[in-house]
Amino acid sequence: MKKYNVAVIGVGAVGIEILRSLKARNFPLDNLRVFARSSREIKVDNDSYQVEAIEGSEFSGIDIALFAGTEGEKGASVLYAQKFIEQGAVVIDNGNDFRLQKGVPLVIPEVNRDKIKTHKGLIANPNCTTIQALVALGGIHKALGLKKFILTSFQATSGAGKKPAIGLWEETKQLVENNKTNDFDHLNKEIKGEPLGFSHQIAFNVIPQIGGFGDDNYTSEEWKVVKETHKIYGDDTINISATCVRVPVFTSHSEAIYFTVRKKATLARIEEILKASEGVVYFSDSFPLPLEVEAKDEVYVGRLRRDPFEENSFWLWCVADNLRKGAALNAVQIAEELIK
Amino acid sequence: MKKYNVAVIGVGAVGIEILRSLKARNFPLDNLRVFARSSREIKVDNDSYQVEAIEGSEFSGIDIALFAGTEGEKGASVLYAQKFIEQGAVVIDNGNDFRLQKGVPLVIPEVNRDKIKTHKGLIANPNCTTIQALVALGGIHKALGLKKFILTSFQATSGAGKKPAIGLWEETKQLVENNKTNDFDHLNKEIKGEPLGFSHQIAFNVIPQIGGFGDDNYTSEEWKVVKETHKIYGDDTINISATCVRVPVFTSHSEAIYFTVRKKATLARIEEILKASEGVVYFSDSFPLPLEVEAKDEVYVGRLRRDPFEENSFWLWCVADNLRKGAALNAVQIAEELIK
Repeated sequence: MKKYNVAVIGVGAVGIEILRSLKARNFPLDNLRVFARSSREIKVDNDSYQVEAIEGSEFSGIDIALFAGTEGEKGASVLYAQKFIEQGAVVIDNGNDFRLQKGVPLVIPEVNRDKIKTHKGLIANPNCTTIQALVALGGIHKALGLKKFILTSFQATSGAGKKPAIGLWEETKQLVENNKTNDFDHLNKEIKGEPLGFSHQIAFNVIPQIGGFGDDNYTSEEWKVVKETHKIYGDDTINISATCVRVPVFTSHSEAIYFTVRKKATLARIEEILKASEGVVYFSDSFPLPLEVEAKDEVYVGRLRRDPFEENSFWLWCVADNLRKGAALNAVQIAEELIK
Repeated sequence: MKKYNVAVIGVGAVGIEILRSLKARNFPLDNLRVFARSSREIKVDNDSYQVEAIEGSEFSGIDIALFAGTEGEKGASVLYAQKFIEQGAVVIDNGNDFRLQKGVPLVIPEVNRDKIKTHKGLIANPNCTTIQALVALGGIHKALGLKKFILTSFQATSGAGKKPAIGLWEETKQLVENNKTNDFDHLNKEIKGEPLGFSHQIAFNVIPQIGGFGDDNYTSEEWKVVKETHKIYGDDTINISATCVRVPVFTSHSEAIYFTVRKKATLARIEEILKASEGVVYFSDSFPLPLEVEAKDEVYVGRLRRDPFEENSFWLWCVADNLRKGAALNAVQIAEELIK
């Protein structure tokens, strides 16, 4: 079996999960190099990795370069992807910078693995919110054609990186330490000082903003869902809009999705499709929870039901680990397809 | 000015807020009696109330009886409302038991205060999730006619009563006390033992179930939104469906609502209507948060935007204190209308 020289760029929440996924899935590694801003040794579970400072490094002989590219480390692929490609590597970029660029395949293996072979050196990994929705809806779209979907997300703090996730923890600890009461009426629910993870306190709160606002009052995260879906499904006639909301959960995004299909479909037909959909674990009479889906690979779907008033319209609830299937795992799965 | 003999039945999360609202709004009280299962003295802020055991009590001379009727104390109005009515009181019931009964007005003063005078002794207070949605959409429905809405809720734990809210607190404390690390990778996010507030752990989790499931996989909470809206707006041709989700927030429900109006409407027109809507505080370029709306009386609306692909369809985000406007305050406002 051929073995590959792989580089991982970035060791934040997503980079660590890439290292974990490569190991867990026995990716055929010859040499593994890990890059970040500064050199250091890191420990992931029981393994040590020597991290090289990316600036000034040479990238020759690398077959596949996986850029973690979380929000907190934006720009790494803009600065370095081309250099890896010039040295012969195929770059798989989890960041946002190249996703919508013409000629760059944007790939979820379960949905459009055929696009991988069209790459010109760079393959983009979609946004976490998009990935899980499109895995959940993928089989349905293929069989029945999606006409429309309306998505409301419940997004985990780790989606913004490790620091905001720790911010939720720090805020929570502060509130527990400053509240010696169990009297509901006298609980102080507001932290002292500035928020520690996001623009507003996230502990015991929800924030309906992920990314920046455009003139149309949609956020960048909400437009990612629309535009990435159009590209991945190869169909820009699907009417999509979203409300993306941060919730005080560490890992795993949840989404309530209302969707309408073009072909006539019964609930039983949708259920049958979901049961057979690649990458989906379907709950017929229960529902997945973010806490239970953390560290799982699949997209979990439940609460399927039909609109009581309109034909061919349905709801589902889907949950996936935003760091795994929403980011690291999807990138490693692309790498696996690449070497097939 | 005439003064009234008022009874409050139930001293859980909602009952306490009824006592607060009566005081804060200077309700013209002659005599105030407070009932619960057992007699005791309770303190609310700086006021003491003598609670009478409801069983075996006499209810003569009471003008208005406010039943708090939260989930935790279901049945009080079923057992006692008729006795109060027979003794001459008008009952305002926050519980679910009579809301959809023919001849019982179901009232949000800002929306359908004219129904109050049709009562035959009992007036029902809608569900918290319904109230804030219908205040937010009330002016829009009146001016443009709602054709459809799709609602996803982020509901606070106190909506289930004080015990579940304290359960969130206890679970959170346990996790803080058992985690001496700040290392995100090694945070233990799961409590030991049984969940303390809901069917599943709610701390750092979200649960897409409020109420029991029907055969159609909708919950009772989701159907309340549909059926109560049809009754309150007096229009059962509006296509409505909902996904109701519990989030680790103590107080104030948030809702992402996608809606379609019958008449042609621009975003500017919807904005103008929201600014003029009774009971609504409109955020034009920001958004309300549950933590900030707690202990406020109005329904806060923000994130208004149009569907980029479909005419006459829009999103809004609304937040209200589920114990106040969602329950106690609305009941007291009905009482105020009653004595006008």
